[in-house]
Amino acid sequence: MRIIRVRYQDRSFYAAITSPDTVRCLNLEENLPDDIPLAEVELLPLVRPSKIVCVGLNYHDHAREMGLPVPEEPVLFLKPPSSVIGPGDAIVMPACSERVDYEAELALVMGKAAHFVSEAEALHHVFGFTCANDVTARDLQKKDGQWTRAKSFDTFCPVGPWIETQVEDVRALALRTVVGGEVRQQGNTADMIFPPARLVSFISRVMTLLPGDVILTGTPAGIGPLKDGDEVTIEIDQVGFLVNSVVSEGPTDPAAVQ
Amino acid sequence: MRIIRVRYQDRSFYAAITSPDTVRCLNLEENLPDDIPLAEVELLPLVRPSKIVCVGLNYHDHAREMGLPVPEEPVLFLKPPSSVIGPGDAIVMPACSERVDYEAELALVMGKAAHFVSEAEALHHVFGFTCANDVTARDLQKKDGQWTRAKSFDTFCPVGPWIETQVEDVRALALRTVVGGEVRQQGNTADMIFPPARLVSFISRVMTLLPGDVILTGTPAGIGPLKDGDEVTIEIDQVGFLVNSVVSEGPTDPAAVQ
Repeated sequence: MRIIRVRYQDRSFYAAITSPDTVRCLNLEENLPDDIPLAEVELLPLVRPSKIVCVGLNYHDHAREMGLPVPEEPVLFLKPPSSVIGPGDAIVMPACSERVDYEAELALVMGKAAHFVSEAEALHHVFGFTCANDVTARDLQKKDGQWTRAKSFDTFCPVGPWIETQVEDVRALALRTVVGGEVRQQGNTADMIFPPARLVSFISRVMTLLPGDVILTGTPAGIGPLKDGDEVTIEIDQVGFLVNSVVSEGPTDPAAVQ
Repeated sequence: MRIIRVRYQDRSFYAAITSPDTVRCLNLEENLPDDIPLAEVELLPLVRPSKIVCVGLNYHDHAREMGLPVPEEPVLFLKPPSSVIGPGDAIVMPACSERVDYEAELALVMGKAAHFVSEAEALHHVFGFTCANDVTARDLQKKDGQWTRAKSFDTFCPVGPWIETQVEDVRALALRTVVGGEVRQQGNTADMIFPPARLVSFISRVMTLLPGDVILTGTPAGIGPLKDGDEVTIEIDQVGFLVNSVVSEGPTDPAAVQ
């Protein structure tokens, strides 16, 4: 089932996509007609997470391209909820960075709270899967040592286009990044160092995961820069495709510039 | 004015402390009596931030004790909202860490959204000030390189006891940590490398700050470990004092342990 979040007749709710041009409200209490025309709903950001937990260096081929050893445990970082944008929205490259990269990632959306869950139980707490782009100011990442600033700018976490609740095998999904029609990243979740169930279990032993929280599971090899005017697509088989434009930050209020 | 968040007669609101045993609801629409007995309200967590932005190495004396150079720009990291606890709550030391440290910090609570605000305007976006303890699993911080896991465990962000809306000079506040009656940290915000207004302006040029968001402004020299049974107090002149107990994590479900 593919799920989106929408506004319709002043009400906001999650809805299932029932045909190419209809959706169905998933909150039965709203008492809405079975099939609402897609054209009549306003698309809302897919998730409103209390936190976005990300994993660095989680593909063998990406660790190799970075010349870094395979980590013994997942390396975690956070992106702020203010970085989330939806499909079709523009990624804004900040003026203070000279290199902004795409990073294709499988995202997990939590459905139930998770605190100290076992690996065997972990995926029962996941609501579904979507595509994410862990946009990164590569120069600031290197300069700061800590990755937070480089990965936290507004618009640096495109997510979407829908939540896919069923995939055959989350450990065998091909994913790719296409920029301007050219394939830039091509990987498979089979190459993950720590698979999704392991990540959910590991993170749940650090911080309680809440419904709506998002986990970004790392990126495969092939990272590279974006430029003003690019269109970047993250595609994951069985999950979907996420398209965003890329623009440079405009001139800002001179009073704000130090 | 000192402000807390409370529940009273099934309503939740911010309230001003009007005497040692009364509070006043700050939402006039609630139409409540002027003075509500403090004994009749339930204290709620002071803040419900969409994000907690923290700054590393922001005191000259702490940079010296760590043997690290003074950073050219603030080094940012995030703590998840799930790490917040209130005054009197217990800090739980996770079994996977062998050294959990206190870090006394002045916290800023945002009152208005801030996006590209100038240093001159920055403090007008701050609602008030409170005490925070940036609890850190020091061994995991060193092991991971990235600081996120070490600083993100549930209970690792005590905040409180109230929001003080007025201080004479935020750049001249003495702060200290007391553990078991012994002073462990003693510093002054005058020693900050990047003062609060600079931090708000800097962060607002990375990520839009929202009302309720919290900024932890770094810790002075004297960091050190906590142990099971400790009582740790963070005191900041003109702001308040925040007391928390310390306990070790109990045995967990064996199924969850890998």
